[in-house]
Amino acid sequence: MAIFFTKEIEGNYLHLEGDEYRHCIKSLRKKVGDLIKVTDGFGQCYLSKISSINKHSLKASIQESIAFEKQNFLQIAIAPTKNQSRIETFVEKATEIGVSDIHFIDFHYGEKPKLKMERIQKIALSAMKQSKQWWLPNLHPILSFTEFVNTKCILPAYYGHIQANLDPWISVTKNDISSMIVIGPEGHFHPKEIELMNEKGLKPCSLGSTVLRVETAGIVAASLFSQRNKI
Amino acid sequence: MAIFFTKEIEGNYLHLEGDEYRHCIKSLRKKVGDLIKVTDGFGQCYLSKISSINKHSLKASIQESIAFEKQNFLQIAIAPTKNQSRIETFVEKATEIGVSDIHFIDFHYGEKPKLKMERIQKIALSAMKQSKQWWLPNLHPILSFTEFVNTKCILPAYYGHIQANLDPWISVTKNDISSMIVIGPEGHFHPKEIELMNEKGLKPCSLGSTVLRVETAGIVAASLFSQRNKI
Repeated sequence: MAIFFTKEIEGNYLHLEGDEYRHCIKSLRKKVGDLIKVTDGFGQCYLSKISSINKHSLKASIQESIAFEKQNFLQIAIAPTKNQSRIETFVEKATEIGVSDIHFIDFHYGEKPKLKMERIQKIALSAMKQSKQWWLPNLHPILSFTEFVNTKCILPAYYGHIQANLDPWISVTKNDISSMIVIGPEGHFHPKEIELMNEKGLKPCSLGSTVLRVETAGIVAASLFSQRNKI
Repeated sequence: MAIFFTKEIEGNYLHLEGDEYRHCIKSLRKKVGDLIKVTDGFGQCYLSKISSINKHSLKASIQESIAFEKQNFLQIAIAPTKNQSRIETFVEKATEIGVSDIHFIDFHYGEKPKLKMERIQKIALSAMKQSKQWWLPNLHPILSFTEFVNTKCILPAYYGHIQANLDPWISVTKNDISSMIVIGPEGHFHPKEIELMNEKGLKPCSLGSTVLRVETAGIVAASLFSQRNKI
């Protein structure tokens, strides 16, 4: 059964608009009286009955509401890639795997692309629905590295680092229910960035022995974290 | 330093042709006498000196040869996706992470696309060079599921399965130096396929609690395996 997404919830009613409305009415040809599953992207599943259909929106009455708790929270802070499609691949895969927050960071040696956030939001939404989840990752607008570390960084936090003999990420995070990892740009971290992260208590860790692209490092971190409670 | 790839190695000499030749001569403007690093994709790094440049190829004399041993071998057997770009994403990421073999399988409920193998080869080659590795994954041509299981499947082998309470892949493979995992199509395995895998000794395992796309499941498996010896 398809899952729809809305932020428009008032009392016992909700509304679908835009793409969600079109998918429901034009593609799936749902009618008044049909039951649909709707999520707010915050863990709620609303089993709802369509009560009225207008030209650009529909209204549905909530019959039942189920809350899905999130088991663990991984926040990934990542450098945007020059080619937006690469960061989109990361957002899609990270959403499927169940990452809770994605922060885009402007690093000293990073690319400076203009992120198409609306498109990235749509990709995350589609991946959430595709992978039958009730949680949409929070997509945070781009911040300078310093602002991010000073205002958003919550311990335990780590940064992926290419350096021999570092502990692998999967072993250092083994007991964390929530965690944060910083993935630097292809040009690596500036020494001052590493200094600041160390000062703030972030720890370096390894994401494997090969040189990974930015988006691959992000997906690898998400994959490892997703199973780290189960080892 | 860029890495070049060739299969043309005779005694103390090697040749670069096609894209590799163009990258070396046209893009990087290497000249006779310059040193280049060349790999055969089987773990060898040849430090070579360009001895002659022709219109479509170059010859280089091998000065030094270093063998890089592969630490572990993961073979992934996977269903081609309808949209070739999705399986290409998988091949790129799996190569970066260091997968040794990729088998494409024609499952009962799978899509039946015509795989552009030449393009997939190029993507793997580019990912190997990008991630500074000396091993190119073996890309096996598409096989029927039965033929694959009967002729190519080597234990220990596993298959990703969405079923509650299954052991996570990372824990079941913990002690394997080489391993194989089968990733089914979006339409899932046919019951007879599961029966045959069980008969042959393949074990079901979980790749996480969310519903992953085919290519994402493959990347997650590769990520987990890449760190499973280090836990």
